[in-house]
Amino acid sequence: MKEFEFYNPTKILFGKGREKEIGNVLKSYGVKKVLFVYGQGSIKEIGLYNKVVESLKDAQIEFVEHPGVKPNPVLSHTREGIDKAKKENVDAVLAVGGGSVLDEGKTIAAGVKVEGDIWDYFKDHNKVIKDALPIFTILTLAATGSEMNGYAVITNEETLEKLSIASEVIYPKVSILNPELTFSVSKQYQAYAAVDTIAHVIEWYFTCNICPNISNRLVESIVKTVMETTEKILENPYDYKVRAEFMWAATLALNGITRLGYGGGIYVNHMIAHSLGALYDLPHGACLSIVIPAWMWWYKDKNTGQFKRFAREIFSKENAEEGIKALKSWFAKIGAPVSLQDENIPSSDIEKIANHVCETTAKTWGLDSVYTPEKLKEVLYLTLRSNIL
Amino acid sequence: MKEFEFYNPTKILFGKGREKEIGNVLKSYGVKKVLFVYGQGSIKEIGLYNKVVESLKDAQIEFVEHPGVKPNPVLSHTREGIDKAKKENVDAVLAVGGGSVLDEGKTIAAGVKVEGDIWDYFKDHNKVIKDALPIFTILTLAATGSEMNGYAVITNEETLEKLSIASEVIYPKVSILNPELTFSVSKQYQAYAAVDTIAHVIEWYFTCNICPNISNRLVESIVKTVMETTEKILENPYDYKVRAEFMWAATLALNGITRLGYGGGIYVNHMIAHSLGALYDLPHGACLSIVIPAWMWWYKDKNTGQFKRFAREIFSKENAEEGIKALKSWFAKIGAPVSLQDENIPSSDIEKIANHVCETTAKTWGLDSVYTPEKLKEVLYLTLRSNIL
Repeated sequence: MKEFEFYNPTKILFGKGREKEIGNVLKSYGVKKVLFVYGQGSIKEIGLYNKVVESLKDAQIEFVEHPGVKPNPVLSHTREGIDKAKKENVDAVLAVGGGSVLDEGKTIAAGVKVEGDIWDYFKDHNKVIKDALPIFTILTLAATGSEMNGYAVITNEETLEKLSIASEVIYPKVSILNPELTFSVSKQYQAYAAVDTIAHVIEWYFTCNICPNISNRLVESIVKTVMETTEKILENPYDYKVRAEFMWAATLALNGITRLGYGGGIYVNHMIAHSLGALYDLPHGACLSIVIPAWMWWYKDKNTGQFKRFAREIFSKENAEEGIKALKSWFAKIGAPVSLQDENIPSSDIEKIANHVCETTAKTWGLDSVYTPEKLKEVLYLTLRSNIL
Repeated sequence: MKEFEFYNPTKILFGKGREKEIGNVLKSYGVKKVLFVYGQGSIKEIGLYNKVVESLKDAQIEFVEHPGVKPNPVLSHTREGIDKAKKENVDAVLAVGGGSVLDEGKTIAAGVKVEGDIWDYFKDHNKVIKDALPIFTILTLAATGSEMNGYAVITNEETLEKLSIASEVIYPKVSILNPELTFSVSKQYQAYAAVDTIAHVIEWYFTCNICPNISNRLVESIVKTVMETTEKILENPYDYKVRAEFMWAATLALNGITRLGYGGGIYVNHMIAHSLGALYDLPHGACLSIVIPAWMWWYKDKNTGQFKRFAREIFSKENAEEGIKALKSWFAKIGAPVSLQDENIPSSDIEKIANHVCETTAKTWGLDSVYTPEKLKEVLYLTLRSNIL
C-alpha cells in the first residue's frame, strides 16, 4: 500500500423520491438563496424541475436559475454563472443534472470565491482553491462520479482546452441520488456512462507500480457490476434494481475509495480523451471507449501482472491480449465507438490530436515529458480502425 | 438497493511514520489542550508514546494523560476520563491504541458534552448524542473499524452489560493509520482481528432481504483480503505490505461503505458475542469466532442464496453447509476458538447466556421479540463443541 490521505465529507441521500427533500436539506444548512444550475431542459421533460422548484418554495429558499449547461460544459457559460451568483448574492449552488451540470456548478461555486479568474486555476494546479460556496446536487446521469468528489472539468471553447480542477472545498455537501431519475438516460448515453465508470477505476489499476490486492478487488467489483448492470439496463431501462446498482457503482468508482493504496497511478486515458472531447465536442464516454483499448494494447507489457489479472478476473481469459480484445468487443457490443473511424475522424488528424494532448492536459499534469507527441501518436495509430488490435 | 444515507467525514492519514504528524494535525484544528487516552502501556513498549509526546510538545499542544483503558473498556474508567476531561477543560480527545482505546476515547468525548449520564445513551438509543469534543486517533490494532466510524462499545462492569452508542458527532476528525504500529500485534490477536473484520462485513451480507451484487462484491473483496493477509501475517508479522492491506481492509469493513444498499441487515453475531464478552471478559474476536459458524448453520436456510454465494465465492464450495464448515475450519486454523468448550464455558451456562443476550443488546436493538431466549439457545447449543456441525 502506498501512503495516502483520504477525506470525503459528501453526504449521500440515496433512494426513490429523495429529490423532494432538497428544500429542507438546503434549509438545514442555513441556505437562504441558491443558484439553481441545470442543463438543456431534460429535467423539465422528466418532471424533476417542477419537483425541485416546489421543494425550494415549500422550504422558502429563494433561487436564481442558471440553465443551459452544455454536455461538455464551457467556460463562457460558467463565467456567466459566476457573474450571476455574485450579482444575485446567492449563498449556495444547487446543480441538478448529469456530470456536466455538476462540474459547472462546482466551478461556479469556486469561481465566486477565488481571487482572480477561475480559468487560471485550471491552467495552473499549483494555484490552490481554498474556498467555495456550499454545493448541493441532484444527479440525473450516473457516470462521472462528480456527485461525491472534489473534481470538475470545464472546456475553454476559445482555446479548445478541456481541463480540470481539484479541491477539498468543491466536494458537494449533499448529493441526492434517485435511480429513477436515470430511467430516461438513453441507451447511447448509458453505454458512454458504463465506459466512463470503467475508465475511472482501471486508470490507476493499470498504471500502478504498487498494486494492492484489496484495491484491485474493489476495482474488479465495480467493473463486474458495471458490465452486468449495463447489459440489463440496455434490455430494460426501467429496472430500478439495476439502475440503482449502476448508479452507486459509478459514484464509488470516483469517490476516491477505489484508488487508495495504489502507487504511481495516472489518468492517462482521460488525458487523451479530454483532447478528443475538446477538439471534436464528442461525449466523454465515446472518447474514452476509442482510447482505452488502444492505450491498453500499447501499455500492456509495462504492467503485465495487472493486465493478466484483469483478463482473468473480468473475462476469464488467460492472457492480457485476450482481456483487452474482450473489453473492446464489449464496448462495441453496448454501442460505444472503438475507433476514430467510428466517429469519422480522419487519420490525418492524429498529429494534431497528439500535439493537443501534449500541450494541454499532459502539460497541466506534468506528463508532457513522458507522453510526448511521438508516444501519443503510437497510441493513436491503434485507435484508427475497430479491427486494428 | 435499499435507500440509504451515507456520511463519513473522517480524514485518514495512512502510511509509515505518520504518527509524528499528530501535533501539527491537532494544531491545524485549533486544539490547545488534549486528553491523551491510551491502554495498558503497550504504546510505551513500541516507542509510540514517546513519539506522540514529542510531536505534541513540538506543536505546543498541552496534554493530560488518561492511561489504563482495558481490552473490554469499562464504564467506570470511562467516567473517570469524562471527569478528568471536564476538570482539565481539554478541547479535544486523542486516543492512541486499538479499538478499545478508541471506543473509550469516543465515549469520553461525547460524555463531556451530553446532558446527564453517558450510560443512559447506551441504554436508550432514542436518546441522541448531539455534540462531542473533536476526536483524533492513532491506531495500533486494526480490527474494530472504530477509527472511521461513529460507533463505540463500552462494558458496564457492575451490571455486566456490553452496549454501544452511534452518532455522527463521534466520527474521528482525523485517524492516523501506520501499519508498522501493528507489527507487534500477537498472532492470537491477529486471529481475533481477522474474525472481527470478517464479522463486520458478513453480518448484513447474511441477514439482508435486499442483497445488491455491488455490495456483495465489496464484502467478498474484504473477506478474501482478510484471509489472504492474515495467513501471511501469521507467517511473517513484519511484512509491511500485508499488514497494510489488512489494516485498510479492517477500516473499510466498518466505515459504512460495505453495508450500503442492503435491506434488513442486523449485527446478530455481534449481539450474541457482546454477551459472551460481558459475562466472561473474553476478547471480542474470540466471542465472534465461537458464535459465527453456529449462527450461520442455524440461519442458513433463511437466506439460501447468500449462503451459497459465500460458499462459492470465498471457498469455491458448492453448497452453503460446506462454506460454513470451511469458514469454521479456517477460524480454527488461525487459532481462534470455535466452541464454548474451547474457552471452558460449561453447557450449563447456555440458559444464562441466552437470557443475557435477550435482556441486554437484543432489547436495546429492539430484537428481543425475534431473538427470544429459546431461539438463542438453539444457536448456542451449536457452539458447544468444535465438531458439532
